[in-house]
Amino acid sequence: MTSSSDWQLRAEIEALCARSAELLDEGPLAAWPSLFAEHGSYRIVTRENLDQGWPLALMLCESRAAIEDRVHAIEHLSLTIPRRVRHMTSGLRISADAEGWRVEANFAVFETLAGAQTVCFAAGLYRDRIIRDADGALRFRERTAICDSALIRNSLVVPL
Amino acid sequence: MTSSSDWQLRAEIEALCARSAELLDEGPLAAWPSLFAEHGSYRIVTRENLDQGWPLALMLCESRAAIEDRVHAIEHLSLTIPRRVRHMTSGLRISADAEGWRVEANFAVFETLAGAQTVCFAAGLYRDRIIRDADGALRFRERTAICDSALIRNSLVVPL
Amino acid sequence: MTSSSDWQLRAEIEALCARSAELLDEGPLAAWPSLFAEHGSYRIVTRENLDQGWPLALMLCESRAAIEDRVHAIEHLSLTIPRRVRHMTSGLRISADAEGWRVEANFAVFETLAGAQTVCFAAGLYRDRIIRDADGALRFRERTAICDSALIRNSLVVPL
Repeated sequence: MTSSSDWQLRAEIEALCARSAELLDEGPLAAWPSLFAEHGSYRIVTRENLDQGWPLALMLCESRAAIEDRVHAIEHLSLTIPRRVRHMTSGLRISADAEGWRVEANFAVFETLAGAQTVCFAAGLYRDRIIRDADGALRFRERTAICDSALIRNSLVVPL
Repeated sequence: MTSSSDWQLRAEIEALCARSAELLDEGPLAAWPSLFAEHGSYRIVTRENLDQGWPLALMLCESRAAIEDRVHAIEHLSLTIPRRVRHMTSGLRISADAEGWRVEANFAVFETLAGAQTVCFAAGLYRDRIIRDADGALRFRERTAICDSALIRNSLVVPL
Repeated sequence: MTSSSDWQLRAEIEALCARSAELLDEGPLAAWPSLFAEHGSYRIVTRENLDQGWPLALMLCESRAAIEDRVHAIEHLSLTIPRRVRHMTSGLRISADAEGWRVEANFAVFETLAGAQTVCFAAGLYRDRIIRDADGALRFRERTAICDSALIRNSLVVPL
């Protein structure tokens, strides 16, 4: 990627990924679905299931409306221990495809329960398809978070 | 951010943040205060205190001179177990304000005590105000490290 | 770094580091040695040994051929518990030298053993010398991974 438009694109993709982390970590969570295209999908799978070809997902939302439902449910959970999550990403790789771009990056997510120390909650790989939407904004057409571990501490509440 | 000057600025801000991590992790720690403006402030607060509006800070230095005093004290601590710290940042967000720029990024800090394994020490959010100083260099006008956890392993010796 | 060629270089260096992480984490591991110059070296040392001037390395490969041997050995290990590794880097610093560039970055590596949760495996500093090779590609002339801890969980199988 050497032209100025490539730089601009990379900056836009980095900004989309940073905005996703910000909304998940700092809120408002209700704004997070707006980062997805209308027909965008979000899923969390384990590496083991992916490698075995098993379709089971830890979280699966097949449209922005489904993602909004999920977020609404999370915001109305009343039994959850208060917690903070913190998303780190590294090593962005971008390649063009027919509709937009395929993007991969490593992630590590940290969790802090009230009154407890911060622990590593999950690590893995984001495998994204990103498109330029009708309004000119970049959005996730697909975001798949592939978890290295099949074990999730406590429960998986907030999206990865 | 699409013009070349925006790119240059982003590179400069990334370099300032990388230099801060380098000086805290690799030293010399005595050079770290030079990254702050003369009237620059540094503080560490917990998310809980921030959310509750409580003013208590884990560390609070309200000028570069106060930061220098703190660093001097750290360098002369004799009772501390030898340790290494390692700062990681992710998801830089930049917006302009009247004096310069407001910058946020996620952080995760790892600690290794002599003879022990590396553990996650803290995770949280940097909330910075950065200015272009009289000599042309970017410096922190404010750096606030907001810790996700109210519990800090061992003691908080080195700045986050 | 302010000119467009500097930007291009930074992007290339970031891409080389991201590609190294990708090949170690996602494979194929057999392609990883191709990121090193023919006379390129790779070593892992502990901070303690480095600080003391002790030459002992946890892993030491003094040519691309030696790196290929090491990778071949790793791929034929049969007794290892299945595991995933995940490399995160942060805070890239680049400076020119006579042959190419000296590059430093912080790293944190996470490990997930089959049936277990993800843990922090190691953190430390990459100290690299990168050159532009005869075919125009950037490659590692030297990559030294300096581990903050002298203790490595389980065993050190995959390069850092």
